[in-house]
Amino acid sequence: MHRKVFQLLVDNTSGVLSRIAGLFSRRGYNIESITAGVTADPRFTRITIVTSGDDDILDQIEKQVAKLEDVRDIRELDPDDSVYRELCLVKVRAGAADRLNLVTIVDMFRGHMVDVGLESMIIEITGTQSKIEAFLKMLDGLEILELARTGIAGLARGVDKVVYL
Amino acid sequence: MHRKVFQLLVDNTSGVLSRIAGLFSRRGYNIESITAGVTADPRFTRITIVTSGDDDILDQIEKQVAKLEDVRDIRELDPDDSVYRELCLVKVRAGAADRLNLVTIVDMFRGHMVDVGLESMIIEITGTQSKIEAFLKMLDGLEILELARTGIAGLARGVDKVVYL
Repeated sequence: MHRKVFQLLVDNTSGVLSRIAGLFSRRGYNIESITAGVTADPRFTRITIVTSGDDDILDQIEKQVAKLEDVRDIRELDPDDSVYRELCLVKVRAGAADRLNLVTIVDMFRGHMVDVGLESMIIEITGTQSKIEAFLKMLDGLEILELARTGIAGLARGVDKVVYL
Repeated sequence: MHRKVFQLLVDNTSGVLSRIAGLFSRRGYNIESITAGVTADPRFTRITIVTSGDDDILDQIEKQVAKLEDVRDIRELDPDDSVYRELCLVKVRAGAADRLNLVTIVDMFRGHMVDVGLESMIIEITGTQSKIEAFLKMLDGLEILELARTGIAGLARGVDKVVYL
């Protein structure tokens, strides 16, 4: 039972996301997070998928994904040699009395206040998943109204493993 | 032809992502971006989907998504009353001679250097999509080796529209 991060390069076509997600779900594998965005070349989309499960079955899924027509490249990111980042928006119930406390916590985590209302604030925080978890734990005692996380985007360090387009 | 951002609250089950993505692709609609992450309550996942197309067809897709067993809530975010943020990792070919120029650009956009090697740097930048596009334009003349974007996460401002769990 391992956690794996796959990086994919795919054609920017309708349906590619659902075909890929379908290959995981057909084996009963939950995609913990999936992020996607166009690359510098708008014909292609880079996708980062986080999943966990049995190594053999994940290897099979990887091979099946690689065979999809829209998929140009799939490989596993080496956690020791990659950079992972996630963005999280948190809406917290906070009146005037809570603001100073909140601002202090947000500063410690180098987050940003992106919206302030009379009764609530929206905070942006970015980092590794463990940093975001640590931040959310610091909000204990405050009421989290809504939370939206992007899931992680990841890149391998250095220039060795780059797929040139 | 409109661009729409949908916010969903779904059960954290395997297959929910591919079922939702499938409803879009069956109508030939491309999901421009999809981000997903567990909420404060680990039974639920919040998903943000960006898509564009004919209003009537998007309304139909919204209704079909709402009927899925795993979907607790779907609604359109009002662009004038919501906060959108995206995270982007960019790996740029940069030797010693490029570093000062790059650091200046990254500082202007309040980005962060997250990895520096002899031949390359990885930069983290967050913001609205237009801020990220503006940043990428500033890199013109430098070689972008790899780019990973999360797609946007979005929350409505204020406390009115919160779905309490």
